[in-house]
Amino acid sequence: MEKKTRIAVDMDEVMADSIARFQEWYGRDFQRELTLESLHGRNAADAVAPEHQAALRAYPNAPGFFKDLPVMADSQDVLRRMSERYELFIATAAMEFANSFLDKYNWLQQHFAFIPWSNYVFCGDKSIINADFLIDDNAYNFDNFRGEGILFNAPHNVHKTGYRRVHSWQEIAGIFL
Amino acid sequence: MEKKTRIAVDMDEVMADSIARFQEWYGRDFQRELTLESLHGRNAADAVAPEHQAALRAYPNAPGFFKDLPVMADSQDVLRRMSERYELFIATAAMEFANSFLDKYNWLQQHFAFIPWSNYVFCGDKSIINADFLIDDNAYNFDNFRGEGILFNAPHNVHKTGYRRVHSWQEIAGIFL
Repeated sequence: MEKKTRIAVDMDEVMADSIARFQEWYGRDFQRELTLESLHGRNAADAVAPEHQAALRAYPNAPGFFKDLPVMADSQDVLRRMSERYELFIATAAMEFANSFLDKYNWLQQHFAFIPWSNYVFCGDKSIINADFLIDDNAYNFDNFRGEGILFNAPHNVHKTGYRRVHSWQEIAGIFL
Repeated sequence: MEKKTRIAVDMDEVMADSIARFQEWYGRDFQRELTLESLHGRNAADAVAPEHQAALRAYPNAPGFFKDLPVMADSQDVLRRMSERYELFIATAAMEFANSFLDKYNWLQQHFAFIPWSNYVFCGDKSIINADFLIDDNAYNFDNFRGEGILFNAPHNVHKTGYRRVHSWQEIAGIFL
C-alpha cells in the first residue's frame, strides 16, 4: 500500500477563529473595538493601548477562551474531503496555555469528529511534527519543520514573506483536492 | 552548529510508575493484590478477575490517576544529564485519557522542570514524532516511528522480541552518556 501524504494542520486562526474571541472579550472588558486593520502585522495584545496589553496577553490562559470558538469558513468541508485522501493530524501549540487542553480537545471532537483523537497533537515546538505539510499561521513554526510549510493568511502575518501563502480553505482545496 | 540528537521519551512506565497507581487503587477498591508476576505479558485490566476488568480499564480516565505518580528510579538524574547533551522531548499518549492532560503537565513541571514545556508532546499516534530515538514501553509505538525505538522493560512487554530492550535508567545512561 502506498503511504498517504501526511498533512498537519494548526488550530488557532486556521481552523478556529480565535480573533473573534479577542474581539468579544476586549469589547466586554474595555468597551473598545479591536479592528482587523489594527491587527495587521501584530498580535492582539500589541494592537491595543499599553494599559490593556497585559489583560489581552492573559486572555488565552483564561478558562473558556478556546471554548466554542467559531469555526473558520469552509474548514470543515475541505478537511472532511481531504481526510478521504490524506492522513490528517491536528498540531496545536497547546502547551503554552495549559488551561486550554480540554477546551481544545472538546472543540475538535465537536466540530471535526471525522478526525480521530489519535491524530491530535498538543505540543510546544512544532519541529517535533513528522509530516509532509504543515498548514499554520505562524511562520516560525516552519523554521525546523521537516516538511513544507503553508502559511495561512492572518492579520498578524500579512508582512511575512518567503512562504507559500493561502488566504482561505477554498485555496487549500485548490492545492490538495 | 551541529544539530543535536533528539530523543523522545514516553511517560507511563518509563518516567512515571503508573503500575503503582493500579496496585494502589485495586487494593483500595477490591482488597486484592496486583502482583508484578500477574502482569507479565499483559496489561493491568487483563491480569485481574473478569468482574474487575471494567473497573481497571476505567482507572486511567478517572481524575487523579496520573497525579503524584512515583518517579521511576534514576530517571530524573539520567534525564538531567542527558538534557545537557541531547534535545529531549516528552511524548505521551495523553489523548486516550482526556482527563489526564493537566495532571501530566503538572507532574512534568514538578519532577522534570529542566525539560521545558515547549518539549512536551501530548499525542495519540506516536508516528507523528520527529525524533532520532524513542524510549517507550509499548513496542507498537515503534511501528511507524522514523527513528530507532528503545523498548523500556515493563511487565506487560516481557515477551516482546525484536527490539533493543533496556531494564533501567542506568542502562539508558550506559547507552547515551
